[in-house]
Amino acid sequence: MASPEIEALTQALARLPGLGPRSARRAVLHLLKKRETALTPLLRALETVSTRLSTCSTCGNVDTSDPCAICADPRRDQRSLCVVEEVADLWALERSRLFPGRFHVLGGRLSALEGVRPEDLSVDRLVARLSAGGIDEVVLATNATLEGQTTAHYIAERLEGFPVRLTRLAHGLPVGGELDYLDEGTLAQALRARRPID
Amino acid sequence: MASPEIEALTQALARLPGLGPRSARRAVLHLLKKRETALTPLLRALETVSTRLSTCSTCGNVDTSDPCAICADPRRDQRSLCVVEEVADLWALERSRLFPGRFHVLGGRLSALEGVRPEDLSVDRLVARLSAGGIDEVVLATNATLEGQTTAHYIAERLEGFPVRLTRLAHGLPVGGELDYLDEGTLAQALRARRPID
Repeated sequence: MASPEIEALTQALARLPGLGPRSARRAVLHLLKKRETALTPLLRALETVSTRLSTCSTCGNVDTSDPCAICADPRRDQRSLCVVEEVADLWALERSRLFPGRFHVLGGRLSALEGVRPEDLSVDRLVARLSAGGIDEVVLATNATLEGQTTAHYIAERLEGFPVRLTRLAHGLPVGGELDYLDEGTLAQALRARRPID
Repeated sequence: MASPEIEALTQALARLPGLGPRSARRAVLHLLKKRETALTPLLRALETVSTRLSTCSTCGNVDTSDPCAICADPRRDQRSLCVVEEVADLWALERSRLFPGRFHVLGGRLSALEGVRPEDLSVDRLVARLSAGGIDEVVLATNATLEGQTTAHYIAERLEGFPVRLTRLAHGLPVGGELDYLDEGTLAQALRARRPID
């Protein structure tokens, strides 16, 4: 029986993945107890992110600038493009610091179950980027799940005819594994051993 | 490798109980993906709580008014006081809607391990409330942990001499508890406190 304001905060937190009603309540109590060290920093961080972040219109990454820092970095290999499902996957690959090129975030994966169709993903923009030329290699770094692989196959079909080398991350990813959960060593091996798509 | 703003938000979230670095990152991605339905409501709720909530100077509850809604409610039994460790415990008892009186939040429990001494809790304020008179019963509703019970004993000693009835929550089998799964301490207490069947 907390006040309506606290209930509203609890419900907003409870909608985050990984938090339920009970853990959200604990988090709220923590925030109320540690106003200066927990509530205020979280509020400031949320404000900053809310006002300053935008989606990169080139690759779909989230950053404070558009184009994002990766797209704007002249030291990145402009000829190599890594296609990932989500921003989380981009971050995971960036943490491994092994991919020198740029990215393309699809914004999801094809899924009959969840009703995600090709037009819901940024495939058209990927095709447009390739049509603009200057790209030699496209690494299809979708998850090693059924949906991720289906998505990779669909994109491979869509990119047929483009003079680019299509590769995918090497086997070595465990079946059902999702990039964001893998350790960097596994990611590194998968990236190093990427192979052409027949 | 997210932007510094995102890293700051991730770290602020990761400090919440129940969230680690990885789950905080997933929560941040969720917030970034669902700006309108997740990030904005959470930001608004935090702002409201941050600006409007204060601690009740009477009982230690957190509310938008001081005294809090419970202390200010004339229908609550003014003669009965329930002493709890944390605001969370007050909320838990309020959810049960069974305690008609008012509360006193200690702000923690005595703990040699965590260095929490009597002067770190609001025991002096509790004594002052009793000295002001008008209270018949004090329910010591601290947790059934070693530290909670130590705290209850300390408070009982401090309240000696006051003309109030000191009680504590009954210990025994929880509703739905199966003997086979309960610890021996609970079983022992349930057996010691066994009561005649009417």
